[in-house]
Amino acid sequence: MPRQEPGRRSDCPVAYALDVVGDRWTLLIVRDLLFNAERRFGDLLDSEEGIATNILADRLSKLEARGIVTAQRDPENRRSKRYRITEVGRALAPVIIEMMIWSAEHDPQTAATKAWLRRAKKDKDALRVEMFGE
Amino acid sequence: MPRQEPGRRSDCPVAYALDVVGDRWTLLIVRDLLFNAERRFGDLLDSEEGIATNILADRLSKLEARGIVTAQRDPENRRSKRYRITEVGRALAPVIIEMMIWSAEHDPQTAATKAWLRRAKKDKDALRVEMFGE
Repeated sequence: MPRQEPGRRSDCPVAYALDVVGDRWTLLIVRDLLFNAERRFGDLLDSEEGIATNILADRLSKLEARGIVTAQRDPENRRSKRYRITEVGRALAPVIIEMMIWSAEHDPQTAATKAWLRRAKKDKDALRVEMFGE
Repeated sequence: MPRQEPGRRSDCPVAYALDVVGDRWTLLIVRDLLFNAERRFGDLLDSEEGIATNILADRLSKLEARGIVTAQRDPENRRSKRYRITEVGRALAPVIIEMMIWSAEHDPQTAATKAWLRRAKKDKDALRVEMFGE
């Protein structure tokens, strides 16, 4: 029997995804890296939701360890890094799109437009490529 | 400008979904209530992942407040309740299915079979109805 990873709760695929991205912040970082080919730490910090420096650093290092994000030294500033989404991270796009659809339908204050929702429900794959690229 | 709900971080639909279901446990409770028409507190407590009593009570009361779950007094035991998913909660099924697909592809220990994954990628709507009903 394979050894249980520390913190692993079961082999259920819902539990696994939640072990990796199941918190209030991680998928917002993934969102920013899907919408932007490359982000510096400060760009991610500037997102509307106001993530704290220590939480952002913690979540980025976990995402890097899981192979969802890569970090490269910034050629213009040796003390800074540039973050990009990997293919494993890009595969989370459908999870994010389904969350957006659910919120667009159930949040009275949603920023998602009715036109976006119609488009999303009509062809999710085309919308994903349009929003986040291949 | 509408008043910001307490704890609301932005009008981004990803942030809204994460405000509601963005933690390690909430979507596991939703999963159990999608797979089973009705659950008692003790049934949910018995799930493989070993949720703690206080966390389960907290998440169920938040899910009830958000209209994702309904609780009814158990006719056989006045001190107990029976929980059911609502239509709003049922609309989270596609989020859960996309998480399952991601895990089935990226977790080496996943309980999801290759046959399930093929089926899921072929027709998600049919799979959703088959797994969770209409």
